[in-house]
Amino acid sequence: MAHTRTKLKAHFLPGQKTGWFDPGVSFMQAALDLGILIESSCAGLGSCAKCKVRIREGAAALTAAERSLLTTHEIAAGIRLSCQAKISGDSVCFVPDESLLLGEQIDIQGKKGAFQLQPDIRKIFLQLPEPQLGQKYFDVEHVVAHASAGLGHALEYDFRLAAGTPSLLRQSDFAVTATADGNKLIALEAGDTTDRLYGVAVDIGTTTLAAKLLDLNNGDVLAIAASVNPQKSYGADVVSRINYSVENPDGLQRLHDMIVQAVNELIENLCRDAEVAAADIYKLVLAGNTVMQHLLLKVEPRNIAYKPYAPAFQGPVTLPASKLGLLAAAGASVYVLPGLACFVGSDVTAVLTVLDLDCNDKLQLVVDIGTNGEMVLGCKGKLVCCSSPAGPAWEGATITYGMRAAQGAIERAEIVDGELRYRTIADAKPVGICGSGLLDLVSEFRRCQVIDKTGRILAPTELNSQVPEKLKQHIMPQENGANDLMIAETSPGKHIMLTQKDIREVQLAKSTIAAGIKILLQEAGTKAAQIENIYIAGAFGNHVRGKDAIDLGLIPAVAESRIHFVGNAALAGAEAVLLSQKARKRAESIAGLVEYIEISEHRDFQEHFIGSMHFPQEAANA
Amino acid sequence: MAHTRTKLKAHFLPGQKTGWFDPGVSFMQAALDLGILIESSCAGLGSCAKCKVRIREGAAALTAAERSLLTTHEIAAGIRLSCQAKISGDSVCFVPDESLLLGEQIDIQGKKGAFQLQPDIRKIFLQLPEPQLGQKYFDVEHVVAHASAGLGHALEYDFRLAAGTPSLLRQSDFAVTATADGNKLIALEAGDTTDRLYGVAVDIGTTTLAAKLLDLNNGDVLAIAASVNPQKSYGADVVSRINYSVENPDGLQRLHDMIVQAVNELIENLCRDAEVAAADIYKLVLAGNTVMQHLLLKVEPRNIAYKPYAPAFQGPVTLPASKLGLLAAAGASVYVLPGLACFVGSDVTAVLTVLDLDCNDKLQLVVDIGTNGEMVLGCKGKLVCCSSPAGPAWEGATITYGMRAAQGAIERAEIVDGELRYRTIADAKPVGICGSGLLDLVSEFRRCQVIDKTGRILAPTELNSQVPEKLKQHIMPQENGANDLMIAETSPGKHIMLTQKDIREVQLAKSTIAAGIKILLQEAGTKAAQIENIYIAGAFGNHVRGKDAIDLGLIPAVAESRIHFVGNAALAGAEAVLLSQKARKRAESIAGLVEYIEISEHRDFQEHFIGSMHFPQEAANA
Repeated sequence: MAHTRTKLKAHFLPGQKTGWFDPGVSFMQAALDLGILIESSCAGLGSCAKCKVRIREGAAALTAAERSLLTTHEIAAGIRLSCQAKISGDSVCFVPDESLLLGEQIDIQGKKGAFQLQPDIRKIFLQLPEPQLGQKYFDVEHVVAHASAGLGHALEYDFRLAAGTPSLLRQSDFAVTATADGNKLIALEAGDTTDRLYGVAVDIGTTTLAAKLLDLNNGDVLAIAASVNPQKSYGADVVSRINYSVENPDGLQRLHDMIVQAVNELIENLCRDAEVAAADIYKLVLAGNTVMQHLLLKVEPRNIAYKPYAPAFQGPVTLPASKLGLLAAAGASVYVLPGLACFVGSDVTAVLTVLDLDCNDKLQLVVDIGTNGEMVLGCKGKLVCCSSPAGPAWEGATITYGMRAAQGAIERAEIVDGELRYRTIADAKPVGICGSGLLDLVSEFRRCQVIDKTGRILAPTELNSQVPEKLKQHIMPQENGANDLMIAETSPGKHIMLTQKDIREVQLAKSTIAAGIKILLQEAGTKAAQIENIYIAGAFGNHVRGKDAIDLGLIPAVAESRIHFVGNAALAGAEAVLLSQKARKRAESIAGLVEYIEISEHRDFQEHFIGSMHFPQEAANA
Repeated sequence: MAHTRTKLKAHFLPGQKTGWFDPGVSFMQAALDLGILIESSCAGLGSCAKCKVRIREGAAALTAAERSLLTTHEIAAGIRLSCQAKISGDSVCFVPDESLLLGEQIDIQGKKGAFQLQPDIRKIFLQLPEPQLGQKYFDVEHVVAHASAGLGHALEYDFRLAAGTPSLLRQSDFAVTATADGNKLIALEAGDTTDRLYGVAVDIGTTTLAAKLLDLNNGDVLAIAASVNPQKSYGADVVSRINYSVENPDGLQRLHDMIVQAVNELIENLCRDAEVAAADIYKLVLAGNTVMQHLLLKVEPRNIAYKPYAPAFQGPVTLPASKLGLLAAAGASVYVLPGLACFVGSDVTAVLTVLDLDCNDKLQLVVDIGTNGEMVLGCKGKLVCCSSPAGPAWEGATITYGMRAAQGAIERAEIVDGELRYRTIADAKPVGICGSGLLDLVSEFRRCQVIDKTGRILAPTELNSQVPEKLKQHIMPQENGANDLMIAETSPGKHIMLTQKDIREVQLAKSTIAAGIKILLQEAGTKAAQIENIYIAGAFGNHVRGKDAIDLGLIPAVAESRIHFVGNAALAGAEAVLLSQKARKRAESIAGLVEYIEISEHRDFQEHFIGSMHFPQEAANA
């Protein structure tokens, strides 16, 4: 397998997963991308020291955080904090059990084999006996019989193959490679092409698309790519996309075309990075929220937006990739994971596939925060889910200086000794605030009591005497009597502000999630204190500090050690389904298992929603 | 069911089959068209009196043949010869067991129920409960669940349906009709459309296409249509079609388009005749020879023509009708019956489906004579088949004045008291000789010893003294020393001739069939005398007199009572498959059961072929 020189190979043990990454990517991020979830409760800030790994070669120098948290003995043994250690060359990284979140459950092709590498797609090379005069003989049936015998189970054939088969057999001297997708023969190629067998997993988010190219022969991740959902220009949230599709005659077609083109661009990028031909991609596995699934498959999403909230289909759906115009082998199919409920899409199914909520008696919670928020509570094998319009606040859409996590976005902030410090993505000049920065800022100003528990930004005169003078200078009184917070100066007289209105947006967004969680707990007849694990998933979730999420009241106040960040677990789930029949069957059974609560109709929703609007008192004491 | 006024309804008992026919069609032909095979050993000439039926109303006056062969008692009771009695009004015809060839076996939906009316296609009307807020609900899965419950088995859905379903459900107030094809939901329509459920059976011959429109709710034949295969302009036989497809870059495409267009024209005619919308046709079942199947499905037929004779596929093949561009409901599929061997196509599978060769221990032979000849011998449950390039002689292509069975074709001939009499189709002015006329002419001149056993037309001087003078006048000596036979004068000095070369063509054509039969018998270790039944099928076979076939040595000399004409049994087989899952499964199992002998490679073929070239001696003694 030839690869472009700019990518570096990282091999993870004991799970035997390999991927190619840009220099400078942290080992934790690389592991996450490969579906290996490493423990962390500090969101990769290098303060919890839970993410220890042993790295052989190919890692950049120790960071200050590592020097302070690792013993000399550990350093001598090659132990690193995976969130801090950056890839600088081809490397091998051993993840010890104690650093592995969930152990084998999430370890898609790991040592303990919860999901063995056993994809639906298989290839077999056949040197076929040539037809003999007087024998009953048919080209296609001949191939099918030998491929079935070789693979050990009966195959059907896609009649599309019949047209090319006669020439192919004779041009290749009856030496061909057959590709099967489950019990269907989907491709026939001259000669032995068994070493070229690829698949792509895609997570289609309202805001972000992410995709992986996988070698189905060994499970290696050959490339990873992400992009902005181009539909964003038609609205930041799913409701505006639905409205666009309803109000414009060609709206559905346009949104559909955009998403198909975006996925194709991801596939092109993946193929270019890994030097793989799209014609050697035999399967695409896609996950996404309900609206994205409808738009992808060009099915009108109208009834999702209006009561009684009725999506057109649940799935799973299998379609020829060619039917959607997606780049892949001629016989390749697209498998779209089944959704769970109207506002809980197949991305959540994918997340649940690689978590263990239904596998034990623990009380566990998944909070998937993207453009929308979805929550699933697992309790004694039962799964109950709900969704809340978390709102695009986290992605910056309704925030005055909001932006997505791109260069120049303030992604982290801290108040130390009364001084506000922040970090921007790529250490660029600040241009706005992304979701994680927003939560940091609100949390920090709340902890310093500049924001009171009702969410009001206090005037300097209202602040208690302990608030340092330097902090007060950030408070900018407005004409309407409210106060805004000045965060950064971008040019003389030009500022990035966090406004009173922004705080209100954050309160609304976190309240719906908090209220949803309360209703799930209430329906399960249990309490937040009983929760053993909270998994925070989603592109945004991956950048939230557990402490912030608790201090703002986004999630229940549990010990930080019980909070786990599982990153884009939807993509990991889609990957698992692509690599493992067992994972696919698990996804399909989960889709039938999960109960749904429409929280907006729940008798106690309003009460919980309003009751969650304030910030917890404890935060101010931190 | 509204029908055009020109068609007359004929209802057959006890099998409860109904069809609509042109006035003047014989009841025997009508029954044949409906798949009811009536006994006959005189090929409908009105001389064997085996085809008695009882007709209530709607039949034209008694013919001379009926007056001479029926008793007054029979006439009083309404008994008729079904080959003679013509439909003149809406009628009911009772076919007694003794007139029924094969009894229930062939009686597709008959009283004894060999093939119950149980099509793969079913409709069900659903008044669906509307979605309720807070319930887990998806439109398509909702429909599938209710349709599955109603039909009593689990259905999958064709995702193509998903796009239209949301609007359809709401526009129809959730009152819809679901159509299932086996375990697949293929259509969803507003309101109750259960009374509109049609299918089409088609037999695609090298020369002729024939089709039937069936009401799948009751098995009624609503219309019958036939047409010339437009590919004829690219060669009369399958080998020239293959050559055309090989030698021209767009040859395959062109031949494919022609056949699709021809089938569509048949469907249009059927729909017009029966006042049915093509959009209410949910299934097409097609049979045809191997080459026609390849051309229909646009698969290169090249290797069928060259050793070792390798067709691309056997089938059965199921494809969306839309993929072939055939007129039908959007979700309709085309089912192409499986073939048996390289030169024994699915038309023979269809024939075998409605005969009983594999169902008992009798020694039985099927001879299907079309553009090619196929023979199947059934012996103690085993089926062995072979094919011979019967050649387009029967269809006139290689005969000097040959033509297909159309207006003006000499279709019957007899020499009575030394005088040649002939009959033309539609009693029109003679313009040529079709297959049945050709056989009659050769047989008659052979019986009169104008043709000797080697096939040579004797000169008048060589004839024995018993040959009447009038007959000698037909003999026209040619410059090359051979003699031709003048058959009819079309205008002064213009004649229709039967040439010495034509006799040779007939000898070649009949020899290959006779040799094939001999090899089948030899391989089965048995003798012609043991044959209990010979079924003569195919458009041409239907017009051959058993006596002629025996006298020319086309088939073994068995008692005429053992010869049965089963007409277009291929179309009857396709019809059975359309109407009955059991028949479809039977066709599929037969395809696996039949053994094939490539006679051209058989060690004794040359000997049998040459040995069959002469005409049997007995004929001259007749």
